[in-house]
Amino acid sequence: MALINENYGKLQTGYLFPEIARRVEEFSAANPDAAIIRLGIGDITLPLAPAIVEALRAAADEMGRETGVHGYGPENGYDFLIEAICEHDYKARGVEIATDEVFVSDGSKQDSGNIQEIFGTQCKIAVTDPSYPVYVDTNVMAGRTGNANTDGVYEGIRYLPATEANGFVPPPPEEPVDLVYLCSPNNPTGSVASRENLSSWVSWARKNDSILIFDAAYDAFIQDDDLPHSIYEIDGALECAIEMRSYSKRAGFTGVRCAYTVVPRQLEGTTANGDRVCLAELWSRRQATKFNSVPYLVQRAAAAVYSPDGRKQTSEQVAFYMRNAMILREGLHAAGFCVFGGEHAPYVWMKTPGGLSSWDCFGELLSKAHVVGTPGSGFGASGEGYIRISAFNSRENVEEAVTRMRRAFSD
Amino acid sequence: MALINENYGKLQTGYLFPEIARRVEEFSAANPDAAIIRLGIGDITLPLAPAIVEALRAAADEMGRETGVHGYGPENGYDFLIEAICEHDYKARGVEIATDEVFVSDGSKQDSGNIQEIFGTQCKIAVTDPSYPVYVDTNVMAGRTGNANTDGVYEGIRYLPATEANGFVPPPPEEPVDLVYLCSPNNPTGSVASRENLSSWVSWARKNDSILIFDAAYDAFIQDDDLPHSIYEIDGALECAIEMRSYSKRAGFTGVRCAYTVVPRQLEGTTANGDRVCLAELWSRRQATKFNSVPYLVQRAAAAVYSPDGRKQTSEQVAFYMRNAMILREGLHAAGFCVFGGEHAPYVWMKTPGGLSSWDCFGELLSKAHVVGTPGSGFGASGEGYIRISAFNSRENVEEAVTRMRRAFSD
Repeated sequence: MALINENYGKLQTGYLFPEIARRVEEFSAANPDAAIIRLGIGDITLPLAPAIVEALRAAADEMGRETGVHGYGPENGYDFLIEAICEHDYKARGVEIATDEVFVSDGSKQDSGNIQEIFGTQCKIAVTDPSYPVYVDTNVMAGRTGNANTDGVYEGIRYLPATEANGFVPPPPEEPVDLVYLCSPNNPTGSVASRENLSSWVSWARKNDSILIFDAAYDAFIQDDDLPHSIYEIDGALECAIEMRSYSKRAGFTGVRCAYTVVPRQLEGTTANGDRVCLAELWSRRQATKFNSVPYLVQRAAAAVYSPDGRKQTSEQVAFYMRNAMILREGLHAAGFCVFGGEHAPYVWMKTPGGLSSWDCFGELLSKAHVVGTPGSGFGASGEGYIRISAFNSRENVEEAVTRMRRAFSD
Repeated sequence: MALINENYGKLQTGYLFPEIARRVEEFSAANPDAAIIRLGIGDITLPLAPAIVEALRAAADEMGRETGVHGYGPENGYDFLIEAICEHDYKARGVEIATDEVFVSDGSKQDSGNIQEIFGTQCKIAVTDPSYPVYVDTNVMAGRTGNANTDGVYEGIRYLPATEANGFVPPPPEEPVDLVYLCSPNNPTGSVASRENLSSWVSWARKNDSILIFDAAYDAFIQDDDLPHSIYEIDGALECAIEMRSYSKRAGFTGVRCAYTVVPRQLEGTTANGDRVCLAELWSRRQATKFNSVPYLVQRAAAAVYSPDGRKQTSEQVAFYMRNAMILREGLHAAGFCVFGGEHAPYVWMKTPGGLSSWDCFGELLSKAHVVGTPGSGFGASGEGYIRISAFNSRENVEEAVTRMRRAFSD
């Protein structure tokens, strides 16, 4: 009799994005003529940059030649990619990361979902609220929580509300917590952590022997060069933080799949007996046993992001999306909506008009404006009353969405 | 204080293949002139087939066009691939699998490692011994076992010895077990399960309400068309078996990464209260939360395996490796070694000469013949006294390996 993992039964409805897709499909089937503009899921819309297409083609050709075939790659990624990461993403910003601290993967979703596996089920976790659902859901599935209440708040998780009052960047809690998930630039609120914000987190983590799981999947969207791109730009972070980065949004890789996680060698967890254990070793073992690295040609494509052409072309794509974000932010503001974010992140965080619930607003946006947003409450209880609008779309659609939303909510 | 997952501490040394790589590297550094022939890890050596290279190139081009960009794909894979799977891998052999029962992934290693997550930690598991280390290791990491003894035998796992006496295809145990990992054609022993073998497993599983996890990663290497390629060719298997297939060996995808798992809709697990739960729903939720599907261009490449050219070209590759297997089997037998397998699988399972331990034989093969095999004991205690020889290499190297092994062990 195969007993199931009953923690799955605690999960609230479906995973957020399939649930949105289901509702949009339902609406679309009932209204086949509606020209729906999708600003829900944060998915890229620009084609792959030429330098990346070229790298994929070249690697495909190479794999077809007797001297060029690549089978199983190095467990944690090819040196040509890891060295480019250390050089361009870290050294260029004054941070020294060793090549054996970088673990290439097929996505930050996977990494942020899998990282909890190396920790004990007794660990107390904290998330900023709202947050990317994977942080909470994977801990629920692993048994680190009790049941959820009707607001979707799980017993046993410490939620740190991101509110208008704290600029959507919550400070550390008073009490110690073992693992904290942070994300900056933030999904979903579009806020960004300052050097001071991150410094307070690093001090707190070191004082409490806590581990910060820092999701920097959107770092390329930061517009002010003085803002930290990496938590390792903060002194002491190498002793308390794991960092995740992705090519998904920065280089249009949502359908190509490549990301990486940095686990500094000095980072340690603890056994119940108080022995200190190197977390990089645990993560390395986890990945070697349950993962088999990223396709060779995808790693070649990721490396091409760092070539002169790749950097120029992907920067232009980021600039395009950030111009969209500005149009959304300014357009919706001018139309009387209360909006946040969108300055250093491709997301605008909009208060629902008239005190609508997030899902009601999602429904009204869809039915009246044929625009898909993401209900803020899908990211956590503190997201209730907000909706996330993504800047990933064509210029035309973004402008049309602003026009339609103004019209739909002005009557 | 971040407590670690202490189950990792129970794992024996490193994951097998990195450990072999480390020892080979050490030898190679000390003997830079040795021309090492690697028949250890089962990694393909032929370049990708032209039809696959072409599919990769075409998909890369498509992704570079405004109308062709593909971002996040469908959670469980694109229809074009899933439909080809249902048609060619199942319907062609008389098995009806619905498209929502197929879950495309980046590898059978991942799937066979992750599948245990949907089951309770109380589940009693069984493995045939020896077996692919991922089955055991991922259950150790999840806390389903006690400690290992000095032979690497974990408390709490039911090992089913695959021996010369049972043709390396163990029968079901007397007592009920919740989850059983089966693999045919078998890694590492190169044995293959007959229709009768699998029928006895299906009857046993249905009688005991057990789930069979059937790893068919090597099905393409079966030479006798009467042997079952899928466990679903056995009546009743849709009610008790999960099946895994891979493009890794069949189409040279070890560095391309694509596989799939079938979870039939009628397959059920049980809660502690005795409620029945659809396992496909649990697996779907697991994948939606912790995975983000396979690159679009990789799925296009996998679909190309089913095109007329793709089928012809990949069949020729399989035939090439199977000719290697025959050369190894016959050559080593003629040289006086005792060998098994290699008839319907790309692995030859060789008794170590002179009663050597597996690792000692590995060391002697390496130092005397400069040939890398995989120590049988690395796959489980019952693998002790055997060594796995892989047929994945060039014809020249395989022939040379036989010559060197004959010479090395004849003195």
